[in-house]
Amino acid sequence: MTLDTDWFSEPLASEGVAFSLRVTSKLHEERTPWQYIEVYETAHWGRLLVIDGCVMLTGRDNFLYHEMMAHPALATHPAPRDVLVIGGGDCGTLREVLRHESVTRAVQVDIDEAVTRAAERFFPELTAGNDDPRVTLRFEDGVAYLRQAPAASFDVVIIDSTDPVGHAAGLFGAPFLSDVRRVLRSPGVLVQQSESPLLHAESVIRPLHGALAEAGFAARATLHFPVPSYPSGWWSATLGLLGLEPEAYRTVTLPELRYYSAAMHQAALTPPAFCGTLFRPDRPAGGGT
Amino acid sequence: MTLDTDWFSEPLASEGVAFSLRVTSKLHEERTPWQYIEVYETAHWGRLLVIDGCVMLTGRDNFLYHEMMAHPALATHPAPRDVLVIGGGDCGTLREVLRHESVTRAVQVDIDEAVTRAAERFFPELTAGNDDPRVTLRFEDGVAYLRQAPAASFDVVIIDSTDPVGHAAGLFGAPFLSDVRRVLRSPGVLVQQSESPLLHAESVIRPLHGALAEAGFAARATLHFPVPSYPSGWWSATLGLLGLEPEAYRTVTLPELRYYSAAMHQAALTPPAFCGTLFRPDRPAGGGT
Repeated sequence: MTLDTDWFSEPLASEGVAFSLRVTSKLHEERTPWQYIEVYETAHWGRLLVIDGCVMLTGRDNFLYHEMMAHPALATHPAPRDVLVIGGGDCGTLREVLRHESVTRAVQVDIDEAVTRAAERFFPELTAGNDDPRVTLRFEDGVAYLRQAPAASFDVVIIDSTDPVGHAAGLFGAPFLSDVRRVLRSPGVLVQQSESPLLHAESVIRPLHGALAEAGFAARATLHFPVPSYPSGWWSATLGLLGLEPEAYRTVTLPELRYYSAAMHQAALTPPAFCGTLFRPDRPAGGGT
Repeated sequence: MTLDTDWFSEPLASEGVAFSLRVTSKLHEERTPWQYIEVYETAHWGRLLVIDGCVMLTGRDNFLYHEMMAHPALATHPAPRDVLVIGGGDCGTLREVLRHESVTRAVQVDIDEAVTRAAERFFPELTAGNDDPRVTLRFEDGVAYLRQAPAASFDVVIIDSTDPVGHAAGLFGAPFLSDVRRVLRSPGVLVQQSESPLLHAESVIRPLHGALAEAGFAARATLHFPVPSYPSGWWSATLGLLGLEPEAYRTVTLPELRYYSAAMHQAALTPPAFCGTLFRPDRPAGGGT
């Protein structure tokens, strides 16, 4: 059947697949210098944030993405204090970072202040931590910020970007990732959202591992987890590590969490058979799971 | 945006969510006494089988569902010989069952022969095992079949049904599950597809655990895994066990598999935090994982 106009649809033309939500009203739309922002009320998924036609988050399922962008990275570091988020303007990942008591400073750099202002207005549950004295919000180009940031000034860098096209494409390349490496201390953790295991294993995940290796991240691992509102409903995040191994994470217990647990961390590290060694390319063969 | 008529869409009205694939042609349509079958060619997902407007499978992602319906159940049994599939007319689950050398008899009972004939014609990779001498295909009502089947005649019963509405609704209730229990030997394994962890935890998974308990399955566990073409892209299967525990599965290594592995079995058993004890309700608190 064909969907009528009560539905918001995000087609991914290159893969011939679309995700749609029934919407009841449009709450906001705004063209900024960088992108086109929309907020809808949906029938069953809470509010919906859309940027340039792509679903950024829904009230119903964003916990999956935000928890898995923050907690595996922070649990892999023995004592994360200084955390940098590049992108992430909706502040949902930042909220998860702030749950870690070891964190003393969380800097977020998103080019578009309008996203954060829209999140404050329409998704206050995501921005509730923004008044935390540990937080600095900067609205500027993350690439430029990183280039001038002091070396060895962060323990964890989270790249919470849109898809690797347009102004976010540079966030997936070796030059940018080398800058990330420079601002990381050792031990240090980078995590980058890396699209769908089903749709983007070869087009995004494999080149990202190559770029991470080129940038000097000796140990790397891709984690996978469900995100129903993203293309294919199955998503990934890729870790680049300095002086750490992906399997040696701390047990982090945060009772507020809805998806992540230490056991789920291990589950997310378990590679689908069809990915072969792609998700953990630097590990010697026969290294177990 | 609105999708044009080049797209096949499956809206799930009760949850206000839809999945769509761009199609290039309709290869087949047929109204049988039980249901309406369609087969499409898609732009990027191979062929698409639709029954009563619901996606049954695509060429691109059916391996996820079929592997996870078969291998966890068979790996949980110490030596599965006699396997019964109720439903499953596309034969993709049956193909996975036949990969296990211990299996000496595989009986499949689907009410609608037309589904299997369509699968033979349009998805021959799924039906390639149907000539295996271990296979018996029966086209009749699975509920009636089970009622008259000899007690203790199967080691594993796989309920590969459509959603729990219409003629499949009975497959989720205690009377039917009691019949399954009767035809199982001990040790014995039942597995039932149990919908989306995000959408159906309370409406399907919780009542199914209740019905399984009522039918006498002392140990139960829900596994979860991605199926991009099903609502929310995140799916589940629930085990009901006689004389077995879900965590005590054999390591099954089948090099042809694309998702399942022993490590992925463990990953699929790892409950999302928001599900609490729902996915493993009979285990004593503090039981690990």
